Order: sequence, then C-alpha cells, then structure tokens
Amino acid sequence: MTEQQRPSPAVRVTINDIAARAGVSIGAVSFALNGRKGVSEKTRARVLKVADELGWAPSTAARSLAEARTETIGLVLRRDLRTLGLESFFMRFIAGMESEMSSRGYGLLLQVAASMDDEIATLTKWRSTRRVDGILLVDLLVDDPRLDLIAGDRALPAVVVGDPSVAGAATSVWTDDAASMRAAVARLAELGHRRITRVAGVAEFAHTRIRDEAFSDEMTRRGLTPRILRTDYTLESGTGATRSILQEDGRPTALIYDNDLMAVAGLGVAHELGLDVPGDVSIIAWDDSVLCEHTFPPLTALSHDVAATGAHAIRRLFAVLDGAEPDAFLDSTATLTERGSTGVPAQEGTA
Amino acid sequence: MTEQQRPSPAVRVTINDIAARAGVSIGAVSFALNGRKGVSEKTRARVLKVADELGWAPSTAARSLAEARTETIGLVLRRDLRTLGLESFFMRFIAGMESEMSSRGYGLLLQVAASMDDEIATLTKWRSTRRVDGILLVDLLVDDPRLDLIAGDRALPAVVVGDPSVAGAATSVWTDDAASMRAAVARLAELGHRRITRVAGVAEFAHTRIRDEAFSDEMTRRGLTPRILRTDYTLESGTGATRSILQEDGRPTALIYDNDLMAVAGLGVAHELGLDVPGDVSIIAWDDSVLCEHTFPPLTALSHDVAATGAHAIRRLFAVLDGAEPDAFLDSTATLTERGSTGVPAQEGTA
Repeated sequence: MTEQQRPSPAVRVTINDIAARAGVSIGAVSFALNGRKGVSEKTRARVLKVADELGWAPSTAARSLAEARTETIGLVLRRDLRTLGLESFFMRFIAGMESEMSSRGYGLLLQVAASMDDEIATLTKWRSTRRVDGILLVDLLVDDPRLDLIAGDRALPAVVVGDPSVAGAATSVWTDDAASMRAAVARLAELGHRRITRVAGVAEFAHTRIRDEAFSDEMTRRGLTPRILRTDYTLESGTGATRSILQEDGRPTALIYDNDLMAVAGLGVAHELGLDVPGDVSIIAWDDSVLCEHTFPPLTALSHDVAATGAHAIRRLFAVLDGAEPDAFLDSTATLTERGSTGVPAQEGTA
Repeated sequence: MTEQQRPSPAVRVTINDIAARAGVSIGAVSFALNGRKGVSEKTRARVLKVADELGWAPSTAARSLAEARTETIGLVLRRDLRTLGLESFFMRFIAGMESEMSSRGYGLLLQVAASMDDEIATLTKWRSTRRVDGILLVDLLVDDPRLDLIAGDRALPAVVVGDPSVAGAATSVWTDDAASMRAAVARLAELGHRRITRVAGVAEFAHTRIRDEAFSDEMTRRGLTPRILRTDYTLESGTGATRSILQEDGRPTALIYDNDLMAVAGLGVAHELGLDVPGDVSIIAWDDSVLCEHTFPPLTALSHDVAATGAHAIRRLFAVLDGAEPDAFLDSTATLTERGSTGVPAQEGTA
C-alpha cells in the first residue's frame, strides 16, 4: 500500500467505530483484533468481519509493526480431509513453493478448508489481520467468488494458479491443459484406439472444464465419440466408474484419468477383471508421479513438473509484491511419457 | 512466559547490545528484527542468531503485540522435496492437525527443511521472532538436537510426536510401534511363514530403531532369523531392495514394508517377476491408506488413523499452551487389516 492510498487520519476507522457497528465493547474489539483471549470465537469473527467491512487498519502505534513484512505466504486448500491426504499433487506443489520461499526466509501459512465459505472466511481474516504478505489461489472455479478479495484498493496480493480466463484481473500462472489432452487423444488414436473414455475430476473446477472441452473437441474432430465419466477424484469413485465401464459390451480400449491415483486404482480394476493392460485396455494417468513408474505395468502419464509450477507461482507473487503489473504466464505444458500401460489395442489394432 | 520469568528492565537486552555483538548498525538490527527490507539475508540471519543468543525480547512498546497470541502453530518437515510429495502420511497428519486448529482460528506455519541444520535455523528464528505459539516435532532422532530448543526458560512450547524415550522432558504423543510390529510377525508366523524380511526406512529415526528391535526380537523369540533391508523410503530404494531379495535362492515368503508406497512398489516388482501374491510372497504395508485398498490384490496393512494422531497432538499442544505439565500420551496402536496380499505360503504352508 502506498502513502497516497492510505486514508488520512481524519477519516481513519477506529476501534470505537468497530465496537459501535458490531455492538460489542471497545475492550472486546481490542481483544479480538489483537488475537488475545477474553472473547468468544463468535464475537471475534463478528469483530473481524466488521473491521474488514469498515476497512480498519491498525493504529499509528501498531502500524510500523503491521507494515513490516510478515514474511509469510498464505495458501488455502479446499479439500475433503480424506482425499487431501492422498494427493501427492499438493505436497509437490508446496515443496516447490517452499524451495523459492526459503531462500528469502518466507514461511507458508497453510489452511485446510472444507468449503468455499470456510476458505473465504480464512482469506478475509488474513486480509483484516495482515497475517500474510500475499496468497496463491488454486482450484479456480468458473466465476470464482474469491476474486473479489484479490481486487480493488484493499486487495490481498495474489497470484492465481489457473487459466487466465478465470483469473479476473490478477496475475496468473497457467498450464495448457487443452494441448496436453489433445496430445493424449492423438497418441491413442494413432495407436488405433477408437473407443476412448475420459475419467474426469470435479466438474466445478475450471481446469476440468477445459480438459473436458479439449477431449470432446479432439475426439469429435477425429470422427470419434467422446465419453466422459465424472468422479470426485477419490479412489472409490475412480474404481467404481472403471469397473462399471469395463464390464460393458463394447467397452473402451483406452482410459484417460484425471490424476495418477485414479489411474493406479483403474489398473487394479483391470487386473481384477482379468483384462490385459495394454492389450485389452490402455491407461493414461494425469499428474505423473514416481508412483506411476512403479506399478506393473508402469503407467503412461501426462508428466508435469508440479514442484516447478509451485516455484514459478511464488516467483510471480514476489514480483507482484514488488509492484509488477498483472500478467498471465504460461507454465510448462504436461507432455506424454509413454510407459507400459499404453499400446495397440488387441481388438482394433488391425482395423 | 509468566511475569516472574521476564527479565527486569535493568537487565533487558536492547538492540544496542545486539548491534554491538553482531557488529552491525542499530538500524540494521531494527530492520532485521522487524522483518523489513534494507538488510541482506545474511545480516538478517546473523542478527536473529545474536538476538536469540542474548535472549532478546521486543521492547515495551512492541511487547503487547508480541505477547498477543499469534494463533499459529509451526511444523517443519525435514524431507527430500521429491519424497515429500509422495507421502500421504504428512498430508493426512496435517489434515488432522487442522481439524483441531481451525475451530480455534489457528493457522499452520509449514516449512520444508532439507537438513537438520536448516530445521534448527527455522525453529530458532521462530523462537526469536515469536512467530508461532507452539510447534510439533516429528521424525525424532535418538539424541535429537532440537530438544534444546524446547527446553529451559526460553523454550518454544512443543509436543513431540514420538516415543517418550526420545522426547526429553517434553510432552509426547506416541504410538506403540513395537506392539504393531510384533502383531504383524505373529500373524505371518501363524500363517506358516518362516522367512520374513523387513524392508525398513531411514535408520536414524527413533521409530525405525524401535520397529527394528521389535522385529528382531519377535523373530528370534520364535526361532526365526530376522532379516532387515535398509531403504530411504523412496520407491527406488524399496523397489531395488525387493527385486534383489526376491531373486535370491531361498527368498523370503513374506515382506513387511515400513510404509504404504514401498509396499505398492514391492507388489509391482512381484508382478514383474511373475510371482504370485500371496502364494509366492505375502506383503504387509505400514501406514494403511486408501491406496492399499485399491491395488490388486489389495494390501494387508498396519492401519493407523494418522489424521487422528495429528488432531491428538494438537489437543495436547493447546493443553501445554494452557499450562499443562509435561506428560506422555499413548495414541491408538496400528492394527493389522488383512486383505488379499497375505496368505499361507505355497512353499511352506504345510511344513
């Protein structure tokens, strides 16, 4: 925040204003804003909300501390706790973030949120209490409600990790998932596959839609019929979808999964049904990980250096903190690493 | 810190003292301590180290803010970045921590450290700058050097997640890994296995030693010869150890892995070598995860609610922050969940 943007002392919001609006004592406001005991969590939440609405800033005495860098970057993961534990994606992403942050002495404030409402409450609190210097936003939705928090005069400095089309006016670091999907379909078609099914993740995510559209478009362009199964990224839903479709007449000869874990589970289903991989069914994983190299057969995957993307996003966030103008930055594109799980289909290879 | 423990104003360490000892200007000390730009990271590190050595505390003016709760818990993960991304253990552990923290409005400050020196530097900085209210210590070593930071007058409030024998005077939350290991060996022996090999993790970890000893003792007690292969938890080392031992004459008929990922990789090696699981070789994983349910055959595992342990540790840390005396708390013990990867050995079942 520059000198010019700071409200003049005459219009400064005081804790008296907050107390009046929130209907609590001045002492309660002070306790709440300073993170001390002595008020209920409910009151604390109300006070922080009112303080945020009024655009409260710490008093002159505290301002020099408040304006000091927190040396902290915030990240909220909006995930079911059970699924979160399994996904290597975010740990690799975080590891990459930290590789850039540690050299500057920055720490990561990490919060797990069960819902978008919870995530927004956390981000609002971080903004009110100046708890972080900036944030990364991940898992963007179409018309993402969090964009309001990173725009305007009181914006939380942020970098969106996602497609520029859903990043609003913010700086974004994105991967060209459409190109990766088209390459996967093209390779399977080249091997002779005609019945290809996509086992897709959560529909609300912008990147899921982008992959959906690229898959459907590339299949149609080749005169093939696209088929998409919807899952919630859990192994249960991936297994269920796989078991169901592989028992159909005219089952697909190739499956493209939206992450690595569902692909590993899908391989397990193929073994269980006595199907040969890749003779009866070829399998492609998204988000290659070391796990894909160590199944039998090893999994063909769309390989992408997730840690490098995390590091890239942090470099862009430091640039934003240093005053860089918003821009969109294309990160490296996931490319197909062919291993043992893809090949010519036994049924259709000679067609 | 109570009123009584605080140094009197007469002996208070000032930034002048720090400047003199560190050999830098007072301005540089101020910048460094307040996290502002204007000093190099090297100078900042030196100033923080000296401030810590001298037992510096923020001045009276800043003290009311410094004494406010940070509402932040710190966790350092000392891991190779590549391995970190794959282990579901820590994400589940963190998810459990956050389930307890979020209801109190606490956030998690997470730092990845490449070495013990880096971890100690981070913890020292957190202590000097009062960045966190308390920490959890994980992956304890025998004679762990971090114990110095959580003992004495200027101790960082902490809970050790590990065996009381290596927790010093700190509160610990521990799991009885020896009992779990004995149960796994007992079950395999009951099925008729006599050649059982343990594929163990990093030797420096206290819990690895505890499992080693329990394995050796339980095998010897049954007149069986214990054999332990050492790995660094990576899939490469797990795969290499498995491939090597399964090609020996008189190969083991059962393998007990120290985590779930190495067990999944070991299953892949068995498939690759054309061995039947469990007929030719039985496999047990430690740290059950949903992944173990979705391989083929599904993996028998020592199941343990890792998220619940994370939540338990945080509850104990809140108690420590509220003044509870140090104590050792036994968490739930991992128990054997039998699935398809264990059975009567084909070679020795009738012996």
